[in-house]
Amino acid sequence: MSEEVGFVAMAKVERKVEEIKSMGIGILGYAFMGKAHAHAWKSIPTYFWPPPALPRLVAICGRTKEAVSEAARRFGFEQYYTDWNLLIKNPDIEIFDNCGPNNMHAEPCIAAAEAGKHIVCEKPLGRNAEESRRMLEAVRKADVKHMCAYNYRFVPAVRLAKKLIEDGLLGRIYHFRARYLQEWIMDPNFPLVWRLRRDVAGSGPLGDLGSHIIDLARFLVGDIKAVAAVTRTFIKERPLLEDPSKKGLVTVEDAFASVVEFDNGAIGTLEATRFAGGRKNYNSFEINGEKASVEFNLERLNELRVYWREEPVRDIMGWHEVLVTESYHPFYRYYWPHGHIGGWEDTFKNELCHFLDCVVNDKSVAPYAATFEDGWKVDMVCDAILESAETGKRILIRC
Amino acid sequence: MSEEVGFVAMAKVERKVEEIKSMGIGILGYAFMGKAHAHAWKSIPTYFWPPPALPRLVAICGRTKEAVSEAARRFGFEQYYTDWNLLIKNPDIEIFDNCGPNNMHAEPCIAAAEAGKHIVCEKPLGRNAEESRRMLEAVRKADVKHMCAYNYRFVPAVRLAKKLIEDGLLGRIYHFRARYLQEWIMDPNFPLVWRLRRDVAGSGPLGDLGSHIIDLARFLVGDIKAVAAVTRTFIKERPLLEDPSKKGLVTVEDAFASVVEFDNGAIGTLEATRFAGGRKNYNSFEINGEKASVEFNLERLNELRVYWREEPVRDIMGWHEVLVTESYHPFYRYYWPHGHIGGWEDTFKNELCHFLDCVVNDKSVAPYAATFEDGWKVDMVCDAILESAETGKRILIRC
Amino acid sequence: MSEEVGFVAMAKVERKVEEIKSMGIGILGYAFMGKAHAHAWKSIPTYFWPPPALPRLVAICGRTKEAVSEAARRFGFEQYYTDWNLLIKNPDIEIFDNCGPNNMHAEPCIAAAEAGKHIVCEKPLGRNAEESRRMLEAVRKADVKHMCAYNYRFVPAVRLAKKLIEDGLLGRIYHFRARYLQEWIMDPNFPLVWRLRRDVAGSGPLGDLGSHIIDLARFLVGDIKAVAAVTRTFIKERPLLEDPSKKGLVTVEDAFASVVEFDNGAIGTLEATRFAGGRKNYNSFEINGEKASVEFNLERLNELRVYWREEPVRDIMGWHEVLVTESYHPFYRYYWPHGHIGGWEDTFKNELCHFLDCVVNDKSVAPYAATFEDGWKVDMVCDAILESAETGKRILIRC
Amino acid sequence: MSEEVGFVAMAKVERKVEEIKSMGIGILGYAFMGKAHAHAWKSIPTYFWPPPALPRLVAICGRTKEAVSEAARRFGFEQYYTDWNLLIKNPDIEIFDNCGPNNMHAEPCIAAAEAGKHIVCEKPLGRNAEESRRMLEAVRKADVKHMCAYNYRFVPAVRLAKKLIEDGLLGRIYHFRARYLQEWIMDPNFPLVWRLRRDVAGSGPLGDLGSHIIDLARFLVGDIKAVAAVTRTFIKERPLLEDPSKKGLVTVEDAFASVVEFDNGAIGTLEATRFAGGRKNYNSFEINGEKASVEFNLERLNELRVYWREEPVRDIMGWHEVLVTESYHPFYRYYWPHGHIGGWEDTFKNELCHFLDCVVNDKSVAPYAATFEDGWKVDMVCDAILESAETGKRILIRC
Repeated sequence: MSEEVGFVAMAKVERKVEEIKSMGIGILGYAFMGKAHAHAWKSIPTYFWPPPALPRLVAICGRTKEAVSEAARRFGFEQYYTDWNLLIKNPDIEIFDNCGPNNMHAEPCIAAAEAGKHIVCEKPLGRNAEESRRMLEAVRKADVKHMCAYNYRFVPAVRLAKKLIEDGLLGRIYHFRARYLQEWIMDPNFPLVWRLRRDVAGSGPLGDLGSHIIDLARFLVGDIKAVAAVTRTFIKERPLLEDPSKKGLVTVEDAFASVVEFDNGAIGTLEATRFAGGRKNYNSFEINGEKASVEFNLERLNELRVYWREEPVRDIMGWHEVLVTESYHPFYRYYWPHGHIGGWEDTFKNELCHFLDCVVNDKSVAPYAATFEDGWKVDMVCDAILESAETGKRILIRC
Repeated sequence: MSEEVGFVAMAKVERKVEEIKSMGIGILGYAFMGKAHAHAWKSIPTYFWPPPALPRLVAICGRTKEAVSEAARRFGFEQYYTDWNLLIKNPDIEIFDNCGPNNMHAEPCIAAAEAGKHIVCEKPLGRNAEESRRMLEAVRKADVKHMCAYNYRFVPAVRLAKKLIEDGLLGRIYHFRARYLQEWIMDPNFPLVWRLRRDVAGSGPLGDLGSHIIDLARFLVGDIKAVAAVTRTFIKERPLLEDPSKKGLVTVEDAFASVVEFDNGAIGTLEATRFAGGRKNYNSFEINGEKASVEFNLERLNELRVYWREEPVRDIMGWHEVLVTESYHPFYRYYWPHGHIGGWEDTFKNELCHFLDCVVNDKSVAPYAATFEDGWKVDMVCDAILESAETGKRILIRC
Repeated sequence: MSEEVGFVAMAKVERKVEEIKSMGIGILGYAFMGKAHAHAWKSIPTYFWPPPALPRLVAICGRTKEAVSEAARRFGFEQYYTDWNLLIKNPDIEIFDNCGPNNMHAEPCIAAAEAGKHIVCEKPLGRNAEESRRMLEAVRKADVKHMCAYNYRFVPAVRLAKKLIEDGLLGRIYHFRARYLQEWIMDPNFPLVWRLRRDVAGSGPLGDLGSHIIDLARFLVGDIKAVAAVTRTFIKERPLLEDPSKKGLVTVEDAFASVVEFDNGAIGTLEATRFAGGRKNYNSFEINGEKASVEFNLERLNELRVYWREEPVRDIMGWHEVLVTESYHPFYRYYWPHGHIGGWEDTFKNELCHFLDCVVNDKSVAPYAATFEDGWKVDMVCDAILESAETGKRILIRC
Repeated sequence: MSEEVGFVAMAKVERKVEEIKSMGIGILGYAFMGKAHAHAWKSIPTYFWPPPALPRLVAICGRTKEAVSEAARRFGFEQYYTDWNLLIKNPDIEIFDNCGPNNMHAEPCIAAAEAGKHIVCEKPLGRNAEESRRMLEAVRKADVKHMCAYNYRFVPAVRLAKKLIEDGLLGRIYHFRARYLQEWIMDPNFPLVWRLRRDVAGSGPLGDLGSHIIDLARFLVGDIKAVAAVTRTFIKERPLLEDPSKKGLVTVEDAFASVVEFDNGAIGTLEATRFAGGRKNYNSFEINGEKASVEFNLERLNELRVYWREEPVRDIMGWHEVLVTESYHPFYRYYWPHGHIGGWEDTFKNELCHFLDCVVNDKSVAPYAATFEDGWKVDMVCDAILESAETGKRILIRC
């Protein structure tokens, strides 16, 4: 097995520190994802030293001048814009990092590709496969680096699962079952936010949460061949944000469940909901292979549970509770001594440093990060799940 | 909420101990289930004192004289038979307890009903819904007490989940997801035992394990309206038991997965496999309701995890890890002080004592135990799952 | 490593079933421990077949005629006594099983020894080391088999820990830390029961709970050389049982804590209390050795957690959560298929069958079960803990 | 109960963002703690917006020019020094943050106090209580703000435990038991680093790890009145760092264990070791109070387990597994949505922002952070533990 996992190539570089160049970053969006990405860019030198390049926070873009100017100061950007077209035109920006809502993915990304920027785009890539296919074509045509920010590939424990599979520890895979469970809209009086409107969000937990587990399914097991699914909207009307005395229709699903068949013969289940009381951000999966099983849960993201059927000492066979914080574990030698656990936000540091490395050193974004091609394929599965739920039929996926 | 859960009525009986009568028991089968049932019948007075009746172990029946005679001595039966027809004709036997393999369920049970015996039959009731429907008709016609031994309804933690639902703690139910995972045939050289042959077993993990979680789904959530499923046979040929140098076809599935829709609007997933390395007897479920969620796993059967969304002290909201061994928990006042945990076999003691109580005191076996009607309805769902897997269509269940 | 652990010798016996003889059992006490022991004796043939002997439940003894006669019927004894002297004189009784309160240990056991009975005595052996020394002398003089019923040695997971140590998996042991925590007298209005009176009980949680962990310390690590301890009585007066309007003095400790030094150089802590809210029967320990660590908790008694520092695949090093229910695990081949977990009461079946085997086949009760010598040595440590708490000095133990 | 916990006062400030001033920071040390502190200072505006002040990273100091100059660039300091006297003289530095090894605590801190700097000093404060007493006197005399960086007070779950105690949820406290377990020097060939030499480190795991749990004991329960302890050095000689072919004496303990008595009547145990295989950074404690218990473990630092004896629904009493990431939990509204868990390093952000707030707004560092007075009192307990281990006597602590 390979000695260490992380940015393998980077570790080998014997670069002189003086030579580190800087790389201009421009971010669209300053809220949840904007904060996560901005802080990650800024943190890269602390952890990954010497870094592939020193991220230079050139500009941040948002709709409201007052808010975006404050965000710029808070996160340490040199300037701000309220028009993303200006951001894209800024020649100092080499990487365009799209942290906007789903309906702001396609147009700015396509424009940025045309402007020759390398692109990071938050997930899901498009609001549907058609939209993401157009985005994929744009980056291909422009020949820029592109990444769809499925950050959970960059959880050390998830990357360790990937490594164990690559190393052959699991053997042939029989099962993948994943559940991404949340609870934040269970109150019927929770308002009709953008995530509950199909025109903005594309879909509900399917695109928001399900896309993550579909991406992990593809990352860890392989392509999905067919789905048979059901969706539900439990609360059909909700108070309008702008006038809570009125109600509007929820136009996305509240939950979905699907059985899946993989190209390699494995079968499984995928499920996501916003109606699972007690599950805050419960992105969990289990894989059963011929020789080993693994289990993961994002609420305990520093841990991977592994059952190895070929354990040498029979008496102590059991699920290994692996605390994925050893220096030889993915990414962790850049962090802290073992047992000093990492947080959710570290996924962004790992992911964006990987992309930085790919851009600076002209490496392949795939297979460890998701590209726009992966983003499109995930959206194909999402579309198939919606179609199956509507028609009551097993839907084959043809990428 | 009701004060205590268990055999509520029994607790109220102020019977004089002298008056305890005995009740004749005859068991078909002396292997795994036979051992579990025989020991449970014998243990009833130790735990449930005074018991509804003193079980009298009249006779046990099996094919091989030497083995069944030894079993009779071991478990304390007065006599043994190698022909189940003789067992059923024995007038001292009031309860016929069928612990035979699946293909030995229908004929002996129907005959026993015709002989006026009260009947316990191991699950699944029939090898398919047609067979179980005939069994149901027989017991109805004979007007005898009947129970299909879905014993996991009698795990204290499962019965507590039932109570919490009845008490309204969960409110409207949104999700049920259950997985019954085992690993015992992962070795490709594991032989072609009866459980892998459709003619004897009817189906694979669907009937063996899936039937348990379908029963729990119906017990805890309600009737299932539709399924969309997939099945797989990973190892298609296995060595013959009688001649390991030759191989025979595996004629049942190795695993199934299904999405389900309930009459009450809830959705969920069901899954069972014998190819989940590390899962020994992992019968687990999670229910998400409007007000609370519960989670259970048979490998830690003394525990129920509960998340209550209406917790009075917000700061300490979280999953309650309930050790279901308090005197006020289901069945446990008959056992030991709290923290002195129970085992898997206790489910049989609880279940058979319940049936004894129903027979002696002419009470309803339902809703806390499964009747032959429940057994038939479970088999209807199993048949629908197989049909969906074959046709690629969502199948509606019409009981 | 040895192939299977349990009653190794017994497994080798190729006894003809017809030859199984019976062995007369007489029990003193019918409450908590009486129920546990009586049911265990009765269950032996179900599990351990063929058994060393068929236990014959000759007689049970208790103070109250009505209660003891009902107990005899309930548990299946042939007769009952209200005077233990008569029990001991009954020539059909070969094994005297003392389940009485602590102040009923010495005199009946000594008399039984003089009557030539083999003896099982519940723990702690005496109310102090002086009393247990007299008991030890009596059984030595009478040359009968003797066992002090420290049943937690017979939890499969604890016996597995013992095996791992014997196999050298842990290497040199550095640390032992054990805590036996309960909560049942936290209510200040809980009455002054016999366990809170030094004249009957000898001590509080020290003798009741602490003795168990001292026994496990000796069983797993070795003899204890020195202690330094503190005790506390948090609630100094409690309502009298006979007249709750009056209060009496609590004359035992409510909790103790001690540091310990072992002969072999290991150090550790021991702690027991009845004031740990949420801990029902939390008997837990952790051992850190040169090569491996183990962790156990009685509330999840089917599990042993093991960390092996010499794990061959570095990536998956972590605590193994071992479900100790495999056929190759201690005792479990006598029970159920893996994953069908056992209960607290099984410890008694394992322990009493071991003693039966020792009596019938003239084997050594030690080292797997505790003898009266072990019982005495535990009491020596208990006395030293009390002395240290009183004097503020480290006390050396001289057995 | 108070609405939210964190920097309560700060949340109320309606400061105009434009008015945020900056505050000069100078750090001594750039290794483990230096990295943690530097990154935390830099991260404050991202999380705590608007912050009490914008930390300005003025200078960092270390012995080796090449290394410290690289550290300055990596962490973003304006300049660097190789002589701490120069750092202290820099007038732009208002806060002196001492991240040096233990033998570099006293002299630079005392000099910084004399220079009028506010001071953060890593723990333990001194190498013994005499040294820390001198440091305390210096900061008192200079009337500067001072904090001993016992950062685990700033784990959200630990601060929640503090809040629950303050709110009266636990009532009278009976027990505190803490264990800080590591494994990093179990290999006998691990070299004789400074932490194993009494002249540099003062003590072994006692000062390094034990000091943390003594601080938590005092923070959560109250002052310690007496200890009775044992220490051990398992590996007495180790290879020299400078010449591994030679060995030198280990002059600190490898482990200690102590019983403790608190002023308020509670008793408990404290234990720390570097010889607990499988325990990476296992800082854990359990508190049993009259009305509730809490349990914590740093390897799962986002969780607090709570058992509440006054739970309104008896059926679901059990340990609450609280994921301490709600917006109403300590500090977490500054971070991410619930379930997006935090890492070990966040403790430093919380702690240093608290100190910044105290300096800028002239607030009291105590009781939520440890002052030099707390640092001294912890060292008094450490000294008493060493004395008890040497003399075999219970030692009273007189602060």
